[in-house]
Amino acid sequence: MTLDDFYAIIPAGGVGTRLWPLSRQARPKFLFDLLGSGRTMIQATFDRLAGICGGDHVVVSTGQSHVDAVRQQLGALSDDAIFAEPVPRDSTAAIALSTAVLARRHGGSIVVGSFAADHVIRDDRAFTRSVEEAVAVARAGYVTTIGMAASRPSTAFGYIHQGDSLAADIPQAPDACLVSEFVEKPDAATAQAYLSTGEYRWNAGMFVMRADVLMESLERFVPDLYGSVMSIAEVWDRGGDQRRRAMEEYWPGIEKIAFDYAVAEPLSLAGGVAMVAGGFGWDDIGDFNSVAALLPSADSRNMKILGDADNLVCLDSAGDMVAPAAGRTVALLGVDDMVVIDTPDALLVAPRARSQEVKDLVAKLAEYGRDDIL
Amino acid sequence: MTLDDFYAIIPAGGVGTRLWPLSRQARPKFLFDLLGSGRTMIQATFDRLAGICGGDHVVVSTGQSHVDAVRQQLGALSDDAIFAEPVPRDSTAAIALSTAVLARRHGGSIVVGSFAADHVIRDDRAFTRSVEEAVAVARAGYVTTIGMAASRPSTAFGYIHQGDSLAADIPQAPDACLVSEFVEKPDAATAQAYLSTGEYRWNAGMFVMRADVLMESLERFVPDLYGSVMSIAEVWDRGGDQRRRAMEEYWPGIEKIAFDYAVAEPLSLAGGVAMVAGGFGWDDIGDFNSVAALLPSADSRNMKILGDADNLVCLDSAGDMVAPAAGRTVALLGVDDMVVIDTPDALLVAPRARSQEVKDLVAKLAEYGRDDIL
Repeated sequence: MTLDDFYAIIPAGGVGTRLWPLSRQARPKFLFDLLGSGRTMIQATFDRLAGICGGDHVVVSTGQSHVDAVRQQLGALSDDAIFAEPVPRDSTAAIALSTAVLARRHGGSIVVGSFAADHVIRDDRAFTRSVEEAVAVARAGYVTTIGMAASRPSTAFGYIHQGDSLAADIPQAPDACLVSEFVEKPDAATAQAYLSTGEYRWNAGMFVMRADVLMESLERFVPDLYGSVMSIAEVWDRGGDQRRRAMEEYWPGIEKIAFDYAVAEPLSLAGGVAMVAGGFGWDDIGDFNSVAALLPSADSRNMKILGDADNLVCLDSAGDMVAPAAGRTVALLGVDDMVVIDTPDALLVAPRARSQEVKDLVAKLAEYGRDDIL
Repeated sequence: MTLDDFYAIIPAGGVGTRLWPLSRQARPKFLFDLLGSGRTMIQATFDRLAGICGGDHVVVSTGQSHVDAVRQQLGALSDDAIFAEPVPRDSTAAIALSTAVLARRHGGSIVVGSFAADHVIRDDRAFTRSVEEAVAVARAGYVTTIGMAASRPSTAFGYIHQGDSLAADIPQAPDACLVSEFVEKPDAATAQAYLSTGEYRWNAGMFVMRADVLMESLERFVPDLYGSVMSIAEVWDRGGDQRRRAMEEYWPGIEKIAFDYAVAEPLSLAGGVAMVAGGFGWDDIGDFNSVAALLPSADSRNMKILGDADNLVCLDSAGDMVAPAAGRTVALLGVDDMVVIDTPDALLVAPRARSQEVKDLVAKLAEYGRDDIL
């Protein structure tokens, strides 16, 4: 199967507040090698997508302040492939602008896919197969998501309720089905109920669709956003002053809305969203507990170490998630199931079970005016 | 009461291993201001004793490698008042050498008192009264200790069992009594039993005695040590080569033995040790839990902060002992009753209740050859 008509968009936006103090506003999580793999999150994402459609079919949408770092980490990326946002306007605007510009360059019948810069994918071959299926379904006119096999009753993800099979219409995607509903992050009991039906999958926010199908949906559901994006896209490739003036005029006023709300949910009610199955091992690394779950155990005591293990000395400690990222020695005595993140200017200590609440701590730092370490 | 015949010796030896990583071999705990009082432990000790007998009656016995730091912290100390040890030989040798030299300078009938450099004393006036009583008892020929009121059934201290009263013989010391026995650190049940009798006090290792009485006791109980020390003392004040050669010849071979074992215990069995009461609020700050107990609470959540409170940000945390001593921000989320000691090259995290075991952690670091941070 050829994917010459397929372009990948990497929205590289989220700071990863719950991964503070590793992740910072000026240095978001996608710029880090959170799994000690040797490649940062965005490098791994680029490599994976370039392996599917070629590096020249991959574009990145990111904040103006991260452009230099992205360019440095992704040497293969041309200037044309970087969409810099002066202020963040959420995923719909990011995907819409990239898609509109790509459609002007390559035609409205191209297929675009959006894949976050900070997700972990274990099995690249299985991922490739899912993307190929999704592209086939997208060519048939559906906004197509890749639903992750739900391996536990997680309350941290949204869920996708699958509807009727599309296998008869699209032979290249035997598992494809309609999406009957997107549901928000559930409580624990609801998540358990979803899991037991076998009809739900995790929503990883991956969407593959024809450019013209997306633009029609945007015009239908978020017409103001569509209008502004089209005005920018029209002059984008003229560059220089024209691009800058259009961005100044339209971008700051664009509605901040997530793609799920703006497009996927309303379109699914109209039968326009499909799903293919993703079984490639996925995580969005939302917090240090997810990082810990993905790191191999350093020893028989289930210690998870991100960084140089020589910098860690433990006595009677187990199950900790430790990042000795300041070059200092971290010594733990009788410390179980804690997160210890050691950076040159800030240290975090917390129980692993409360990793999600790191965002509250960061909010408190912001309240205190500690912009120097945010 | 005049104390013209009284000289104070400050043995400044112990590293304070259980206070790692604040305390280091090259920077022992007596050089730190562990209570945030504005004076280091040895400065506070010197001030307290100089207030009793004058700064020119105070001498310090310390390791050769700490002499510069001691001299810097105690500007009032003359070179004659510093006894530098090329290698540590425990408290008996330290007290014996200082005493022997002072006796040669000022006569054998002087009274010397030994007071560790790293103890905390709350009430200097009450301390002065106890020392005055101890000097009176020492003049009568007793090796005299100051027994601390035992305020709880501590298993961290040795105990003194009091014997017959000496009040009839020494009117200036109405509370003085013989020591019937020194007992080692007890288990919890024994400590509780001691406390309920009202006959036991804590042994703080403070000893006051006539120089000639001490020298006789040393000759009797540890004759080899006595002989070596006398050989050194004989040439000490000739300085230069003679002192150095004597130290090289005799000091390294001297027995390492604590004063309690060498003198106090055997002499007490012969009725030669007395005790006066100390009710001045005392602690030896053995570990971070003791530091925490002595620090004021920083807030209603019983946080104990050694250093700049502006460097600490807490969310839903209570009862922690935190030393933000690296200038970085320490952020605690949901962390209760823990010790977090942040220094430029090493970080310690441990439950407060396990503070005593920090010495085991340090032993492990030594085993790993981490001399760089010991």
